[in-house]
Amino acid sequence: MSTAPHDPHAEVHFTSSETVRDIVIGLADGLTVPFALAAGIAGAVTNIASPTHLVVTAGLAEIAAGSIAMGLGGYLASRGDTEHFEAERRREEREVVERPADEEEEIYEIFEQYGVDREAATPVLRSLQANPKAFVDFMMRFELGLEEPAPGRALRSAATIAVSYIVGGAVPLASYLVFSDIQRALKVSVVVTLIALAVFGAIKGKALGASVLKSALQTVAIGGVAAAAAFELARLLNSHP
Amino acid sequence: MSTAPHDPHAEVHFTSSETVRDIVIGLADGLTVPFALAAGIAGAVTNIASPTHLVVTAGLAEIAAGSIAMGLGGYLASRGDTEHFEAERRREEREVVERPADEEEEIYEIFEQYGVDREAATPVLRSLQANPKAFVDFMMRFELGLEEPAPGRALRSAATIAVSYIVGGAVPLASYLVFSDIQRALKVSVVVTLIALAVFGAIKGKALGASVLKSALQTVAIGGVAAAAAFELARLLNSHP
Repeated sequence: MSTAPHDPHAEVHFTSSETVRDIVIGLADGLTVPFALAAGIAGAVTNIASPTHLVVTAGLAEIAAGSIAMGLGGYLASRGDTEHFEAERRREEREVVERPADEEEEIYEIFEQYGVDREAATPVLRSLQANPKAFVDFMMRFELGLEEPAPGRALRSAATIAVSYIVGGAVPLASYLVFSDIQRALKVSVVVTLIALAVFGAIKGKALGASVLKSALQTVAIGGVAAAAAFELARLLNSHP
Repeated sequence: MSTAPHDPHAEVHFTSSETVRDIVIGLADGLTVPFALAAGIAGAVTNIASPTHLVVTAGLAEIAAGSIAMGLGGYLASRGDTEHFEAERRREEREVVERPADEEEEIYEIFEQYGVDREAATPVLRSLQANPKAFVDFMMRFELGLEEPAPGRALRSAATIAVSYIVGGAVPLASYLVFSDIQRALKVSVVVTLIALAVFGAIKGKALGASVLKSALQTVAIGGVAAAAAFELARLLNSHP
């Protein structure tokens, strides 16, 4: 794998924020969707023998499906990004050799967007032309806006998202495992999960440098709206079987 | 809202690929998770009065929860990107005025990464200094690697993801509405959804410029693995209530 010139500080920032992003993606959906689904089923199925068992079954099936879909989806998306980067890089490497005049023109056009005329841009162009690898690196970043994906990122990303989804999903389901009374299990699940969503939102806000309170309220709102919608929809359907 | 200098061609490409990406995100999960959940429940609950009604209830609750979680999640993520861009832009605008020497140094450092020495970079620097707006635009793109999010993108992104999720989720659920025999509904759902996943994967591959066959196989594999895992897990749980 080629090594593009990187600002080491920028790269550390980039990698850690990508991991935080994966955890956020997995936890946000894991806390929200199984929570809302469990609430929906709990609101609908009151006339069967062991409704909490059904909620747990459906909830775990959802967690399996959701974590695999998100994890594998994340894996393939990251792999796709890497393949796209490598294909574009090979194309630039070819073009630098085969169409040097076009590439010269592209450099001038990049600088023109920032009001830098040809005369001022020429010394940079000559310097890049003396170093074809740097020329390609420059085009990848400044013409195409592509950053080289970190090696091994695809698998790490998939695992991070999937595990975060499972951890998140375990929170709303736990109370249905503990309480056999479905109404009680639902109430505890709602309280526990809304608290977890608020804590998660606050930490997310802090990690991403946004407002802690706003982030907490937003996360609670998403989970609350999703659960309320699922609950009402399921109850409506069940009142007209 | 400030208008950064854009290559119009690049911007069109950017916006349309963002929409395609949103549709892909929504459809991929919408086709996969409700499909897997429905299969899981269908495999588990055979001893109740109207199992297909339960599958439809749980499936619709999942679609409501999933589309709201993904749509609202996408909305807030896009809003966050815009806020982050604007905050960074204001910071750069301040720094250009308050710390011109540091900013000069940063420009030199950007070019140094590509082997361009100070002498060659100076004409570009002087040209940027004559035009503070272009200076800030240059730093946003080349120091921070940030692109200005398209205005109105957050809401469009949310709606695109949510609708795509609902459309995707309707495919696996339809057969449970049509057939009252749960085994038959499950079989039809599996066949119809795997075909839909293959078609979706092929179109996705074509739209994103990847291999059509490979993309189709990958999409079918994600859906198949998720559904099989949900099905087996739910059946396992139900055999030991």
